[in-house]
Amino acid sequence: MGDVIAPATFDIPGIVGQLRDARHRWRTSQQRARDPGGRELPSRDAVAPIVQGLRGALFPMRLGPADLRQQSEDYYVGHTLDIALNALLAQVRLELRYAARHQSRATARHDGPEIDEAAIDARAHALVQAFAASLAPIRTLLDSDVQAAFHGDPAAGSVDEVLLCYPGVEAMIHHRLAHRLYELGVPLIARIVAEQAHGATGIDIHPGAQIGPAFFIDHGTGVVIGETAVIGERVRVYQAVTLGAKRFPADTDGHLHKGLARHPIVEDDVVIYAGATILGRVTLGRGSTIGGNVWLTRSVPPGSHISQASLQGESADHHSPTVATAA
Amino acid sequence: MGDVIAPATFDIPGIVGQLRDARHRWRTSQQRARDPGGRELPSRDAVAPIVQGLRGALFPMRLGPADLRQQSEDYYVGHTLDIALNALLAQVRLELRYAARHQSRATARHDGPEIDEAAIDARAHALVQAFAASLAPIRTLLDSDVQAAFHGDPAAGSVDEVLLCYPGVEAMIHHRLAHRLYELGVPLIARIVAEQAHGATGIDIHPGAQIGPAFFIDHGTGVVIGETAVIGERVRVYQAVTLGAKRFPADTDGHLHKGLARHPIVEDDVVIYAGATILGRVTLGRGSTIGGNVWLTRSVPPGSHISQASLQGESADHHSPTVATAA
Amino acid sequence: MGDVIAPATFDIPGIVGQLRDARHRWRTSQQRARDPGGRELPSRDAVAPIVQGLRGALFPMRLGPADLRQQSEDYYVGHTLDIALNALLAQVRLELRYAARHQSRATARHDGPEIDEAAIDARAHALVQAFAASLAPIRTLLDSDVQAAFHGDPAAGSVDEVLLCYPGVEAMIHHRLAHRLYELGVPLIARIVAEQAHGATGIDIHPGAQIGPAFFIDHGTGVVIGETAVIGERVRVYQAVTLGAKRFPADTDGHLHKGLARHPIVEDDVVIYAGATILGRVTLGRGSTIGGNVWLTRSVPPGSHISQASLQGESADHHSPTVATAA
Amino acid sequence: MGDVIAPATFDIPGIVGQLRDARHRWRTSQQRARDPGGRELPSRDAVAPIVQGLRGALFPMRLGPADLRQQSEDYYVGHTLDIALNALLAQVRLELRYAARHQSRATARHDGPEIDEAAIDARAHALVQAFAASLAPIRTLLDSDVQAAFHGDPAAGSVDEVLLCYPGVEAMIHHRLAHRLYELGVPLIARIVAEQAHGATGIDIHPGAQIGPAFFIDHGTGVVIGETAVIGERVRVYQAVTLGAKRFPADTDGHLHKGLARHPIVEDDVVIYAGATILGRVTLGRGSTIGGNVWLTRSVPPGSHISQASLQGESADHHSPTVATAA
Amino acid sequence: MGDVIAPATFDIPGIVGQLRDARHRWRTSQQRARDPGGRELPSRDAVAPIVQGLRGALFPMRLGPADLRQQSEDYYVGHTLDIALNALLAQVRLELRYAARHQSRATARHDGPEIDEAAIDARAHALVQAFAASLAPIRTLLDSDVQAAFHGDPAAGSVDEVLLCYPGVEAMIHHRLAHRLYELGVPLIARIVAEQAHGATGIDIHPGAQIGPAFFIDHGTGVVIGETAVIGERVRVYQAVTLGAKRFPADTDGHLHKGLARHPIVEDDVVIYAGATILGRVTLGRGSTIGGNVWLTRSVPPGSHISQASLQGESADHHSPTVATAA
Amino acid sequence: MGDVIAPATFDIPGIVGQLRDARHRWRTSQQRARDPGGRELPSRDAVAPIVQGLRGALFPMRLGPADLRQQSEDYYVGHTLDIALNALLAQVRLELRYAARHQSRATARHDGPEIDEAAIDARAHALVQAFAASLAPIRTLLDSDVQAAFHGDPAAGSVDEVLLCYPGVEAMIHHRLAHRLYELGVPLIARIVAEQAHGATGIDIHPGAQIGPAFFIDHGTGVVIGETAVIGERVRVYQAVTLGAKRFPADTDGHLHKGLARHPIVEDDVVIYAGATILGRVTLGRGSTIGGNVWLTRSVPPGSHISQASLQGESADHHSPTVATAA
Repeated sequence: MGDVIAPATFDIPGIVGQLRDARHRWRTSQQRARDPGGRELPSRDAVAPIVQGLRGALFPMRLGPADLRQQSEDYYVGHTLDIALNALLAQVRLELRYAARHQSRATARHDGPEIDEAAIDARAHALVQAFAASLAPIRTLLDSDVQAAFHGDPAAGSVDEVLLCYPGVEAMIHHRLAHRLYELGVPLIARIVAEQAHGATGIDIHPGAQIGPAFFIDHGTGVVIGETAVIGERVRVYQAVTLGAKRFPADTDGHLHKGLARHPIVEDDVVIYAGATILGRVTLGRGSTIGGNVWLTRSVPPGSHISQASLQGESADHHSPTVATAA
Repeated sequence: MGDVIAPATFDIPGIVGQLRDARHRWRTSQQRARDPGGRELPSRDAVAPIVQGLRGALFPMRLGPADLRQQSEDYYVGHTLDIALNALLAQVRLELRYAARHQSRATARHDGPEIDEAAIDARAHALVQAFAASLAPIRTLLDSDVQAAFHGDPAAGSVDEVLLCYPGVEAMIHHRLAHRLYELGVPLIARIVAEQAHGATGIDIHPGAQIGPAFFIDHGTGVVIGETAVIGERVRVYQAVTLGAKRFPADTDGHLHKGLARHPIVEDDVVIYAGATILGRVTLGRGSTIGGNVWLTRSVPPGSHISQASLQGESADHHSPTVATAA
Repeated sequence: MGDVIAPATFDIPGIVGQLRDARHRWRTSQQRARDPGGRELPSRDAVAPIVQGLRGALFPMRLGPADLRQQSEDYYVGHTLDIALNALLAQVRLELRYAARHQSRATARHDGPEIDEAAIDARAHALVQAFAASLAPIRTLLDSDVQAAFHGDPAAGSVDEVLLCYPGVEAMIHHRLAHRLYELGVPLIARIVAEQAHGATGIDIHPGAQIGPAFFIDHGTGVVIGETAVIGERVRVYQAVTLGAKRFPADTDGHLHKGLARHPIVEDDVVIYAGATILGRVTLGRGSTIGGNVWLTRSVPPGSHISQASLQGESADHHSPTVATAA
Repeated sequence: MGDVIAPATFDIPGIVGQLRDARHRWRTSQQRARDPGGRELPSRDAVAPIVQGLRGALFPMRLGPADLRQQSEDYYVGHTLDIALNALLAQVRLELRYAARHQSRATARHDGPEIDEAAIDARAHALVQAFAASLAPIRTLLDSDVQAAFHGDPAAGSVDEVLLCYPGVEAMIHHRLAHRLYELGVPLIARIVAEQAHGATGIDIHPGAQIGPAFFIDHGTGVVIGETAVIGERVRVYQAVTLGAKRFPADTDGHLHKGLARHPIVEDDVVIYAGATILGRVTLGRGSTIGGNVWLTRSVPPGSHISQASLQGESADHHSPTVATAA
Repeated sequence: MGDVIAPATFDIPGIVGQLRDARHRWRTSQQRARDPGGRELPSRDAVAPIVQGLRGALFPMRLGPADLRQQSEDYYVGHTLDIALNALLAQVRLELRYAARHQSRATARHDGPEIDEAAIDARAHALVQAFAASLAPIRTLLDSDVQAAFHGDPAAGSVDEVLLCYPGVEAMIHHRLAHRLYELGVPLIARIVAEQAHGATGIDIHPGAQIGPAFFIDHGTGVVIGETAVIGERVRVYQAVTLGAKRFPADTDGHLHKGLARHPIVEDDVVIYAGATILGRVTLGRGSTIGGNVWLTRSVPPGSHISQASLQGESADHHSPTVATAA
Repeated sequence: MGDVIAPATFDIPGIVGQLRDARHRWRTSQQRARDPGGRELPSRDAVAPIVQGLRGALFPMRLGPADLRQQSEDYYVGHTLDIALNALLAQVRLELRYAARHQSRATARHDGPEIDEAAIDARAHALVQAFAASLAPIRTLLDSDVQAAFHGDPAAGSVDEVLLCYPGVEAMIHHRLAHRLYELGVPLIARIVAEQAHGATGIDIHPGAQIGPAFFIDHGTGVVIGETAVIGERVRVYQAVTLGAKRFPADTDGHLHKGLARHPIVEDDVVIYAGATILGRVTLGRGSTIGGNVWLTRSVPPGSHISQASLQGESADHHSPTVATAA
């Protein structure tokens, strides 16, 4: 006698029903009407190839297909942009429509005006056109970032190595695209673009952050840069640096105030070493150096050299007042 | 005269032999019998699509296929569960069998009893059934996490954005699945599920950790939560927070004691800001706030506000005793 | 009247032209001749499957294909090596040729000697042969790392779990391969290999770092180990540990000195707990323990126990002088 | 001195220009306006997965995914139909819109009415609903075909083998779907479905052909069945049989009359052996047998036995008047 | 007011129900018990990669991976065989189990003996071992086919071209594998293998056909060779040749006799030109030539030259009695 | 007690050895030196994407990617050509080098001259340039074929349907590319291109055949057109038509004469109905019609109407002297 493996049986209908009930409770709690239609939001799977295409269009010989030749770059760039921009247009439409519906649901009477699809389409189109016009300036900004990385890291062998290997550069490619999308009014797509870099590099830059040219993040894991941060030119930042907010102000009924300026301003030529934490709407004056692991919640004047020691008023270790953390 | 590129030759047989010898030495050192058969362990490649399927079954319109329609959700959920649960069953069998063999090898005489395959199959089946029954409660817990993130982050535009973009939510989807698997007795599969989130988000939660509803991790990179940690309801945690163990007790012959409670207990409504490190089986009392970068190895009573300054007994900076680190 | 969605039109030729101009400005600024040919650099897409193959060849039953059987391991290993080594040879040729061209461009007169292709091919071949001969020793080193992780983590259930799940082990597989490539003279490929692990694990080890056997990194996110670090045997390191450099010496015209020894030496049996930062060419003496979050810029003798408290000369907390951070 | 392979250069811009000119000439000759937009026709790549899905929905345990279980068939069927029918709807819209534009271009004045998109959408929706309602009857028809094949071929081991292996059955699955689409008014999509079977099996059935239940094609390569053919119940046909048209009637200015009944009527229980050619609007009476390679351009009464010999008035071979060709 | 495209709604539950009813009627008509378990039959998707692997193992440098090197052939062959043979074993088990269940259902009383799984496993194992031992002889037979094609076609430039391009050779690779499987007792898998070649080449050889060495099929489309055909050495056949059966004998209650010898015997060195049809258990004597389009239902002695003309007793065209059809 | 499935063991080393011996015997019989290097022949897997690319470049809006827009056609065409032509160059180099080696092996003394790689590279480059210059004329020829199909088939609804659905058009796209490659001196690549169409459509056109504009093949399965066939303008051909050779002349030692003109010449405006077989270097005069299944081995004057009846001198069936076979 041999015995067969009995086919497993699970109570699929029962579990399906439980999950349906759970979804129903959630949708009810969120005041969502039952909607028979399809996906109403931009999707990560749709955004990923768009960013991939834009990266290739920006740096065809380094991030484009391996069998590309310089003499045919423009064909590749044109074809890739055509696909990527039209795909982006579809995602932008989804987000604008979603935002309009969300807003009308939040504010309007049940007999309020319908969403104006034609207006949304026109706005989406104009938005992507404006985004496309920004690509060349973004490339130029990114060139300055690559240059900054090459000059800032003694281990960098060439600008090509920087572009191929440095997670900080990868994060900045995403950020400069995401920031433009954020400015133009599609913060959700912008956030998806930013989170792809966060997942790949451990560098978490909110798309709202304003960052000047020649920005260099070394190593990068654990860096967090908040939504309203403003960063000048030629700034250098190491791993695990936080440019964050202090406790958020809340109104009397406990809702957070959204959108207030609550992150630091970092002026030109500042260097912030690994693990430093700068919190609140403070200003780091031009040319300052912030030492590793420093915890700072006040502004410092231009040319400051801040270290843990200096903060604690201790005189020990005077000869190396600004200890840097870089590998 | 033209010259061809000489085909490269490598001493493949030699290297193959050296690698075989190295494997042989390892297996001998591990007292492993030569076993002509196939893979005996769960595999990452097999677990990944299972988790992918479960995520889709939990949130069909957000994490399922892009062309899904709400009216057909149940079909998708049922089909996806059928595939995923049966695939999980196969992996569970592998782990239970591996554990049984491992154990019998460790303890038994060479003529000891054979592994009871029928019993393992029955246990695997019961285990997956229990897991399946937990899916709807897990969905409800995750809904509370999404809600918590939306309320806890001034930058969050909608609950949909939170579900799509927040790495903390992604980590919690994995954790709540992994924790249930851990409870049910397949810690290795649970760990594989957890490590997939760790790789993608930089958030490292051991599957053993017990976490209450409405848990929110912001930014997340560098968060570490240990195996025996216990976390209450509505807790909020920022990047680089560690809920860790102090030095592990070892017995007289130097072996670590495994399985002892050695990580913190965090009561309801606690907030822990970025970079804080809490070590050992201490308790953070209900409603406490732990400031950024704080290093804490003792319990604190409910309602405490702990900052670096307060720990050092310094009176400076009295007006902002709890400095938060959040972007 | 129904209205069709007007097809979107973007000024693709205009944007293509702007991007071409941006590339042109960059290439001019970098003194690059217009080169009609193809890619001249190793590529991430080409290196990834090579590393995948080498991982499988090193650990066929754990990291090779799921349907492999032990009795046929050697066939798999031989076939996989043949493909991987020849693919590596092609990438090595690209890097050596790129380096030669780069160098001749940097140093030579315009009428200088051509690149010697035959010499490059011969060197590439010898290099890959030497690399291949290192694979078995690398396997043995990695076995010691796996063993160290199993003994060092109370949560580890078996050596198999360690190999399947621990990001620290994944990072070390990449590092030991990358380090050998770095030694042999292809630092760019080495860096690509290292960055793949960095992206997947958050552990950033420069390929130049010298690391002895039985090295264990737990959790790992945020670990940074610099180019000239030297690490002994049986060293253990936790998440967010930095072995970094202090401020780089620059020469009189502001160029960084590259290649100087500027990172710590860590002797045998040292343990460094989470978040500790060790900077500069200091030595951590044999058997020392460095506590969590410690900031250290000086050498310590063998057997030292360094904690935040001890550094601040405080006597509190004497009974647990070395607080560990581990989950 | 070694020599590099000179990168190949082709005059891509020149060839692109020539191809553009060729396209321009064609479009001018076809009176096509320049249209900046996208694809206006159904596509083979889009139709293929739809048919794949419908095949799975019709025969889930045989043509659906390998890991399906009978207890969960309905979930698979429902999910697959949802995806396939909505994808079909998009293709149907394309064809209806294309047909409307084509027609208005052919007939209308330049200032004629616009295409009524809303009407097209409504018609597309109704069409796919009608198609969906036909799926169960089509399954029942196909069951009769499978049964017929099993009874008609001495080499067939089981109905399962027939469904898995017989190209005649594969062709009929496609035909019965394609014929329904043809009836409903999307002949182009119908043709794409038919041609996929033609390419895979060598059996070329025009979607317009009307075929009764229990139809069996053995071997099948080279079978051609024309647009207006009418086939009764329980008919059997072997490889290379043609049910074709005679010379097409043309009007006085040489244009072919399209759509006239011009192919044979085959009544119930007829058998047609390999290589037989039946041409024109003739009728093969109920229960007749047509021998291999017979060339027939006239009707035959019920119960006829036609062979090459009988056609040539020869009395030889009397004992086996109807020679069958079947392997 | 702009209008959104209304999401399409189909009555998915209704159609799912209708399809379930249709399946239920079929299963009832086939006396199939409701079986909650999974797939019980070999699958085309599973067999395809097995054949792909076997083709590569037989001709590694021509049909194996493009980056293979001769010096490493054996590794590739060994690894590929290991995967393919074990995958084949799984399919063989499915077919043997299916056959056993089918048979017991057909013959036995309801309380009959269970299927003996252990015996099936043993038989499957022995079967695949026997198959594996046939691979080298099959390779040698195929070499003779390649050689025959090269010598038989004036358009053939080299044996390599023949192996790469000739559909007749592709069909024979499949047939020689399929025939061995058929002999060993898995006719369904054999048929799947044969039908893959049929679909790709239009050449339909039943796996049961016995074919000697140095067999050459030119062009091939439309060739049909029946189950009990026997073909000698050095036979040559052109497109659309049929070696078929005459009308099948049926027993008194109308069931076909299965398995009787009913197809031609073709002796050594026979040539059969395009479109010729040979029917029934006749013998074509050694060295005979059968002209194009000839219809033959009787045996011919060795050395015969049969043409359409000679069959019709006409004296015209005497000077080219055997007209060949070959391109 | 349950029993485990014993892992299957096959004698892989034994079978590998047998296959190695079989390969060795073959290589010895073919006088092939043992060659440690890689693939020396063009490959089907490499040619397929090249043809795919060329099809897209010829008909971007119909056979290119689904998301292409007319305004960006040129970018797509340019990028696709760049990739395809350079990939073709690599394959052409392989074939030319293979041919040179083959030839030198066949003719030369062992100490004969080496292969001149530089000359081969130059020839390959010139060849692909000439091929590229032919693409626009080929597009124009194919436009005439599409037009001919549309006018020749009463079932064709539009030229677009013809391009999307007609296997005859697919075969001609491949043929016109393959023929140009054949003319330019790479017959093996040409054959691979042709066989891809043969496999997909059942239409077997030798790349050597010369075919004028506006050629239309309806249905197509089983069509065979030989290497030296010459076909004029506006010719129409139906399924299973053969333009073949008679018995090949052989020289005194039995070797076939290769390359002689041995297939029919078909003048302008000829129609050949299904199943007709025309053999040998005969001429079908301008405007002739050849009836279905006709067997013809002699030339016919312009304006002939040939049917089976007319060939047999029979007066029956006078009213339909030229019976067409077309569906």
